[in-house]
Amino acid sequence: MSYGLQEVIQEVLRRIKPNVEERNHMDNVLSKVVSKLQEEFKNIEPEADVLIEGSVAKDTWLSGETDADVFVRFPVKWKKDDMGRTLIDCVKRVFGSENCRLRFAEHPYVTVRIEGINVDIVPCYRVNRGEYRSATDRTVFHTEFVREKLSQEMRDEARLLKKFFKGIGVYGAEIKTRGFSGFLVELLVYSLGGFKETLEKLSSFKPPLILDPGDLYKGREEELYRRARDSLICVIDPVDELRNVAAAVSGESLSIAQYASYLMLKKPSVKFFYPTHKASKEEIRGIVRSRGLNMFAITIPAWTDIPDILWGQAYRLLSRISIFLEENEFRVLMDKVWSDEEKNVVLLFILEEVEKRAAVLHMGPPYFSSNVPIFIETYLNNERTLVQPFPRNGRWWTILKPKAKDVSEVISKAFSSKEFLKGFSENVLKAISESKMYCGEDVVEAVDNTGYLSFLEKCIHPFSWMLRED
Amino acid sequence: MSYGLQEVIQEVLRRIKPNVEERNHMDNVLSKVVSKLQEEFKNIEPEADVLIEGSVAKDTWLSGETDADVFVRFPVKWKKDDMGRTLIDCVKRVFGSENCRLRFAEHPYVTVRIEGINVDIVPCYRVNRGEYRSATDRTVFHTEFVREKLSQEMRDEARLLKKFFKGIGVYGAEIKTRGFSGFLVELLVYSLGGFKETLEKLSSFKPPLILDPGDLYKGREEELYRRARDSLICVIDPVDELRNVAAAVSGESLSIAQYASYLMLKKPSVKFFYPTHKASKEEIRGIVRSRGLNMFAITIPAWTDIPDILWGQAYRLLSRISIFLEENEFRVLMDKVWSDEEKNVVLLFILEEVEKRAAVLHMGPPYFSSNVPIFIETYLNNERTLVQPFPRNGRWWTILKPKAKDVSEVISKAFSSKEFLKGFSENVLKAISESKMYCGEDVVEAVDNTGYLSFLEKCIHPFSWMLRED
Repeated sequence: MSYGLQEVIQEVLRRIKPNVEERNHMDNVLSKVVSKLQEEFKNIEPEADVLIEGSVAKDTWLSGETDADVFVRFPVKWKKDDMGRTLIDCVKRVFGSENCRLRFAEHPYVTVRIEGINVDIVPCYRVNRGEYRSATDRTVFHTEFVREKLSQEMRDEARLLKKFFKGIGVYGAEIKTRGFSGFLVELLVYSLGGFKETLEKLSSFKPPLILDPGDLYKGREEELYRRARDSLICVIDPVDELRNVAAAVSGESLSIAQYASYLMLKKPSVKFFYPTHKASKEEIRGIVRSRGLNMFAITIPAWTDIPDILWGQAYRLLSRISIFLEENEFRVLMDKVWSDEEKNVVLLFILEEVEKRAAVLHMGPPYFSSNVPIFIETYLNNERTLVQPFPRNGRWWTILKPKAKDVSEVISKAFSSKEFLKGFSENVLKAISESKMYCGEDVVEAVDNTGYLSFLEKCIHPFSWMLRED
Repeated sequence: MSYGLQEVIQEVLRRIKPNVEERNHMDNVLSKVVSKLQEEFKNIEPEADVLIEGSVAKDTWLSGETDADVFVRFPVKWKKDDMGRTLIDCVKRVFGSENCRLRFAEHPYVTVRIEGINVDIVPCYRVNRGEYRSATDRTVFHTEFVREKLSQEMRDEARLLKKFFKGIGVYGAEIKTRGFSGFLVELLVYSLGGFKETLEKLSSFKPPLILDPGDLYKGREEELYRRARDSLICVIDPVDELRNVAAAVSGESLSIAQYASYLMLKKPSVKFFYPTHKASKEEIRGIVRSRGLNMFAITIPAWTDIPDILWGQAYRLLSRISIFLEENEFRVLMDKVWSDEEKNVVLLFILEEVEKRAAVLHMGPPYFSSNVPIFIETYLNNERTLVQPFPRNGRWWTILKPKAKDVSEVISKAFSSKEFLKGFSENVLKAISESKMYCGEDVVEAVDNTGYLSFLEKCIHPFSWMLRED
């Protein structure tokens, strides 16, 4: 059955707009948090405000979302360290430290779980627009901008786009996803005119896309284009002309968003908003086996509980391993990271082969380069040489024995090389020393987690759900 | 033991300069041929000259060489076809058709074997310098140029360079070698000042090398540089300003000449002039087996007795097969042709693998290309798809099942494809239909010929003899 875009939008909106009960519950919880904190702060710092922020304050949150933000805004006389510590102590006192979880972005904050809602309680400074002292100081101005500029309908359009990006896997600016933040979604909808208009813009997108929703560069368009020249997408923060709200969006996320937008417009469907990946362990094992896929997984115990640090280091490790594999003549066809952000990190690779059996072509200098003699002498009687240097198509070449027999050998070599491990913290090194490797269909055993199985399925069938018939 | 360059040159000259007996024998044979032909032509065409040409006439031939050239120069009133036919008939009558072998370059000629000497008897026209009607008309002017300009010492230097190029495998302008012709050798020695000077020039060579031994472009140097701009090496024919005597020299031959010149100057040795390749069949079989080299040979019965045509078509077939193998995801590390020019042609390949077992990475369009949807839809449910399209490092990719299981399958596919065989003559097609394939160490069985074994050894150890200690 095929639906029109309007029908799909209506159906999704029906599902994602919080209903009255949900709204009331959220309001009650947050009012309670705010009043308790206000009460406590009377004694600590009477000038501090306690504010509801984020998608609840902007009324762009989705039904079922259980995350909310409360900001405590301090006068600028407070030192950053004292502000964080004072807030944390206060929250623990008020809500009981057993309900608190310490988090860390630029400075520390606390998550409190109350009646099914996870409230992030975050410190910031009271400053004038543009005079920001910490990354969170902008947030209150962002909230103000959205509240002032976005109509009720526009907020629903933002909900749609947010859910769409979540569905296709590109929602969130953190390192894990390198996709679209909530505020970016709101700005796109505001600048481009709505959900459908954003999809249209994305589906025909050629970089760079430059938007200035706050009109901060009015009359200075040339300066804006110069500034945005090297970006794929540049959306100027309406409260900070030097900040690109879309800076974190990777080309990969943007390309996925483009293709999904194209498909959604071509054949609208609710499935884009509700993707399904649900093969069983045995099914995935069967797929890997029957396709003869050379998959390879390295499991490493999580070495920190701060997600952005974990993902950042995991991606760095992934890319370093991929380079090392390529240097050791193993061709990497795909490399991905998965983590539950608590116990395990899995680095997953698909390789052309996991075991080398034959010869490797090694490129030398072009004809008439002064390096030809050195190249020939190096490989003439080298112990790896299978075929001595010879000229072909403008260059010299040699054929060598592969550097390593199989991929586990390469990984072991990497993990015992000081050079390779340079720059990783003690925590990461310790975790690496406890790593395990899984090869072929056994990658399904790397961790026991349904999220991991979905991740594996998504590696092999990244977008099949998008094209599946309803 | 290490020799100085002068010692090596003396030793080689001692071996390559024809001695008095050899000269006398050559002179006797050629005088006999000339006088018999002159006698015969008195009746056919009294205006025809019979001339000794080539390296014997120029006194640049090597001891042991048994090839010589005699030209019959016709007045221009003769038609090309008549001239050839008349000459052939005449030679057969004079020397007996059982001693004649028909050859073919631009027009037909005849080889006669007399007292151990193979005399090529070639027709040409008597024309003024520059007014050439056939490719061979220039030859008498070339002979004149060398006789006039090169001293006795220079002719010895030319002998050295010719022997050196023979030794390192780059002597001969024919398609088989794409190297240095005898006349080019003489011009290099004349222009650069000698054997050593030519080695020095070659060893530090950066293209293009431009020489004008006849000073034909004196005062028009800019025109010369413009003309030679796209050549690696341009040596203007002193009897034809539009002809580059070095046009046939391939980059490969030139690069080999460069490296060998460098080595020879660094550590002079007679071995450059007398290369040795002499492994036995069992030794080569052992090398291929122990190194795990994925060698693959196709034997095809020789389809013509005209060497240049045979080599030209064999190279065309070789390159078409290499492209076809790459299209079918088999990486070609080396491809070479061998032929005895009589019975067999062997196309030899070294491949990364002869049998595919796993997956193949297939490149799609870059992010934001309008071809992304087509690419994704093509490979989403393709029967070859192992991993559905995914974005990585700026492009879309997919992982596919290999097109063919092993290399024999690919070759069979090629040889039964009309598209692949298009443009080859009936002779070649018939020969291809009788081809045979040999894999791995069995390539040593492809033909029973010691020249073929040397060729195989040279494929694996192309220049080891150059660097072997004396």
